[in-house]
Amino acid sequence: MPELRKDPISQRWVIIATERSKRANHYKSSGPPPQAEPKFCPFCSGNEDKTPPEILAYRPDGSRPNTPGWHIRVVANKFPALRIEGGLNREGEGIYDKMNGIGAHEVIIETPDHKQTMATMTDKHVEDILWSFRDRILDLKKDRRFRFILLFKNHGEAAGASVEHSHSQLIALPIVPRNVIDELRGAKDYYDQKERCIFCDIIRQETASKVRLVSENDNYACITPYAARFPFETWILPKKHGPFFEDSQKYEFEALARILCDTLRRLDKALNNPPYNFIIHSAPVNQAYHDEDYYHWHLQIMPRLTNIAGFEWGTGFYINPTPPEEAAKFLRELEIRD
Amino acid sequence: MPELRKDPISQRWVIIATERSKRANHYKSSGPPPQAEPKFCPFCSGNEDKTPPEILAYRPDGSRPNTPGWHIRVVANKFPALRIEGGLNREGEGIYDKMNGIGAHEVIIETPDHKQTMATMTDKHVEDILWSFRDRILDLKKDRRFRFILLFKNHGEAAGASVEHSHSQLIALPIVPRNVIDELRGAKDYYDQKERCIFCDIIRQETASKVRLVSENDNYACITPYAARFPFETWILPKKHGPFFEDSQKYEFEALARILCDTLRRLDKALNNPPYNFIIHSAPVNQAYHDEDYYHWHLQIMPRLTNIAGFEWGTGFYINPTPPEEAAKFLRELEIRD
Repeated sequence: MPELRKDPISQRWVIIATERSKRANHYKSSGPPPQAEPKFCPFCSGNEDKTPPEILAYRPDGSRPNTPGWHIRVVANKFPALRIEGGLNREGEGIYDKMNGIGAHEVIIETPDHKQTMATMTDKHVEDILWSFRDRILDLKKDRRFRFILLFKNHGEAAGASVEHSHSQLIALPIVPRNVIDELRGAKDYYDQKERCIFCDIIRQETASKVRLVSENDNYACITPYAARFPFETWILPKKHGPFFEDSQKYEFEALARILCDTLRRLDKALNNPPYNFIIHSAPVNQAYHDEDYYHWHLQIMPRLTNIAGFEWGTGFYINPTPPEEAAKFLRELEIRD
Repeated sequence: MPELRKDPISQRWVIIATERSKRANHYKSSGPPPQAEPKFCPFCSGNEDKTPPEILAYRPDGSRPNTPGWHIRVVANKFPALRIEGGLNREGEGIYDKMNGIGAHEVIIETPDHKQTMATMTDKHVEDILWSFRDRILDLKKDRRFRFILLFKNHGEAAGASVEHSHSQLIALPIVPRNVIDELRGAKDYYDQKERCIFCDIIRQETASKVRLVSENDNYACITPYAARFPFETWILPKKHGPFFEDSQKYEFEALARILCDTLRRLDKALNNPPYNFIIHSAPVNQAYHDEDYYHWHLQIMPRLTNIAGFEWGTGFYINPTPPEEAAKFLRELEIRD
């Protein structure tokens, strides 16, 4: 019998097809096609003049801005979905509402090397990427127009990446988006009822039962969520309660890089370099109210192995052909070398 | 300057990229690859024994069930996401909630001819398909366990269709899904404030201004919505207020088939047989309360030309590179023969 499971935070239902479940082999992607002749890439070292000027770069050799020598580089998106200059100009259009698309849209170029992915980089390099996320968030938070800063990654064409070279993106928004409000509300309702954080409860249940646990270290747990929307969806949760990703300490970024690299290597091995999105869920910024008690930042990784079709669009319901318990067991039992 | 626009019903924001807007040519798909040797198709006439037995069939020649002679045929989905037998068995699993995946999952095989699509069929044939939708809904509504019946179509592989042969699907659910609740709540909030139906107001504004009007007849308007999530997204709205698709009258199904065929032919011509989903938005069934006053059924068509990526997943916000005014103008000005 298929199971309907409810995500305890968003209250979203998913259908877990326990009977005709699909295992990792079913999804193994063929990997990216080998590039006989690599196309021109604006993110490669030496092509710094093909991107907007850098906003931030880590240059261990002290080289000049917008020249080679960097190992992580942040630039404005050349084709931004939003513009940083101007006022919101909220106005009506008959019965409709609109405002100017004010916001920041930046690209974190994660490595000068076109052939690296987050799963093949060293833990230390990924830790530095996490530091660059933090640096940009702390800077953008100073702009009081912004209410929400999203850090995300599209890896592979099927996951929406238009450039192959490993990169993440940051979007700062003047409003708190609907999905975020729904997640906050779900966490607050639970807190109001039980006076406990729902994410802390999830960590307690999952690290005790271990059926959906992929791995853990002193500071983080990696699980497949109970109401996973997608096959091999995995979440990384900090064991210490806190609403903001950017408040993490040095030892936490070290431990996060370690578990993130390990998870991405497991997904790579299980699914042969699958397309995926990852999203850092962190609390809204510059708010009058505070989310400290009930919100708990975390990172969600969603391999893109199935198509979203009419049913999902019409209902917001997902059909997941791989029970998260099976995905967790498969990922947990893989042998991964550091 | 890009625009943030708010959907007045769901309150969902979208980013309309007015400056670097993408026109129809940008999306022209290459169409389906010509099939040198058609693969075996379980939905073709003559293969009736390869599907579950028919639940409904229109057989103008009076032929026997599960033999050729039908022109529309409804069967249970061979790989159902949900099962019709059993109880809900709601239960907890620690902090989580689940229930059995009870529901109906049916396939409407729209034609015996493998080469037809809804855009190439006669208006009369499409009208008969609409009648088959109505017949199945009226039958399933009698099952008091069901609260919501979704009718949708996945056309093309990128839109999630696993079988090429033209078909729609029906799913009856024991709960009202989150997206539907959000839409109902949006419509109710507007009604509570203004004592008018938001959809009726949309129809009035759009048929008066005409900037987002694709076509209209006495009974329906076809528009591109103000806060379109996707390039060339189009909605067909009945001019007569009513919450249920299945309450439509004979003359209305005739007019709906006409405008639906016309719209699909326009999209086919503009975008060269694009993958798309359509979804009938109709009120929940078997409810104690009534949605008559504020809810207004309609049909949404979403061409699948862009990828959903990390930003959309993280926020529920969409980035649409084609302003709906441009899409409407392009579709409106195409010459279409009936």
